[in-house]
Amino acid sequence: MVAIVPAAGSGERLGAGRPKALVTVAGDPMVVRAVAGLVSAGVDDVVVVAPADHLDEMRSVLPAPARTVAGGADRVASVALGLAAIGDADVVLVHDAARCLCPADVTRAVVAAVRDGHGAVVPALPVADTVRRVDPAGRLVGPVDRTGLLAVQTPQGFAPDVLRRAHEAAAGSPTASRATDDAGLVEALGGEVVTVPGDPRAFKITTPLDLAMAEALLTAGDVSDGPPLAPDVRERSSPHGAEVRR
Amino acid sequence: MVAIVPAAGSGERLGAGRPKALVTVAGDPMVVRAVAGLVSAGVDDVVVVAPADHLDEMRSVLPAPARTVAGGADRVASVALGLAAIGDADVVLVHDAARCLCPADVTRAVVAAVRDGHGAVVPALPVADTVRRVDPAGRLVGPVDRTGLLAVQTPQGFAPDVLRRAHEAAAGSPTASRATDDAGLVEALGGEVVTVPGDPRAFKITTPLDLAMAEALLTAGDVSDGPPLAPDVRERSSPHGAEVRR
Repeated sequence: MVAIVPAAGSGERLGAGRPKALVTVAGDPMVVRAVAGLVSAGVDDVVVVAPADHLDEMRSVLPAPARTVAGGADRVASVALGLAAIGDADVVLVHDAARCLCPADVTRAVVAAVRDGHGAVVPALPVADTVRRVDPAGRLVGPVDRTGLLAVQTPQGFAPDVLRRAHEAAAGSPTASRATDDAGLVEALGGEVVTVPGDPRAFKITTPLDLAMAEALLTAGDVSDGPPLAPDVRERSSPHGAEVRR
Repeated sequence: MVAIVPAAGSGERLGAGRPKALVTVAGDPMVVRAVAGLVSAGVDDVVVVAPADHLDEMRSVLPAPARTVAGGADRVASVALGLAAIGDADVVLVHDAARCLCPADVTRAVVAAVRDGHGAVVPALPVADTVRRVDPAGRLVGPVDRTGLLAVQTPQGFAPDVLRRAHEAAAGSPTASRATDDAGLVEALGGEVVTVPGDPRAFKITTPLDLAMAEALLTAGDVSDGPPLAPDVRERSSPHGAEVRR
């Protein structure tokens, strides 16, 4: 089982002045946490796609079994370069480095669904917000049907040939470079994508606010492998067993 | 200027065993923080719609000028009961107690847009996630067009007659009780709703994860009235000016 971790993004919105995947959360770079999470779920080969001008820095922080290759012009190109670097595997995962607190159980569920015969699998959660559409003037233009509306996360899992075909098709498409995930490329080819339950902790760290939340989660309790954060987790982690105010 | 704060929800998802609005964030009940935020934006009358069996507790924690009335069977009914309790005002705001970290600047922008002649105004942010739709079997059923897709927040602002007409119509509608916000009721009548920029800090606290994020924000720096949380805000709030690890 192999995972590709696209980590070539600049991280401009984090304002950190360095590749986003190298920004630390409670002391460890996001990409290191993301790789560790994959490994704890049983992934035995990880290809990290790094910014070409930060390859050495990426290599210096990454633990085994992670390997590093140079990224491309956009996310789709970077995943394709990662795909070119993998060997034989029954499952290929693609996982955002910025979703570095994703519990291992989510990864295991994605892998299990691929092994059950699904060619493309994504973790997804119901959209919590009231979602609306606006016209260019900023006026709401009618409700958006929330039935079955889901926010899609990573790791996304694929049968290797399904992911390869999707990227081969994307390489010839002028619009594919705007795709925000790999399941979208499979869908564009008419391929079936199934969902497994996502987890709030698999959120994408994009802004300083997200970073503050991630650090709070790591302070509050076991993030990587436990059940969803519950009130009693927060109480257990407080000093001297004191009651947490709420 | 008056605000209605629907705060009659049970808070089951927070697992706190008490009304959600009374759950504390860093020591203060959400509803107290929400009222304080409105007052700091210039609101001079606040009607909090409380669970009927927690009226006394709600009254005991709320600062002036907040008043308390008993809520109804659902959110729409509760806002209608709040609306019946307000006096004359040029602007009526409806604000979720659970969005208690909403910066005052967001509230001011909503009020300004109503005073500029817009009958219904909502703060909104672009949807950050990749959003998809699934069929009942959990298979993705094609992409959702993200053009103009926004997540709607509160406070929502209204010309009083616009909000009253929307709730009068809702009272006779079997589907209105499922409305998740007041702007939706205005839209259902064909009324125009305009948007102003929302703020990530105006997120709705629903789960223990959200609560952890809210506490992290309050620890990290000035939430209620400053610019969006930036990396240097976190550094300024660290002890002895030490560099924050990232």
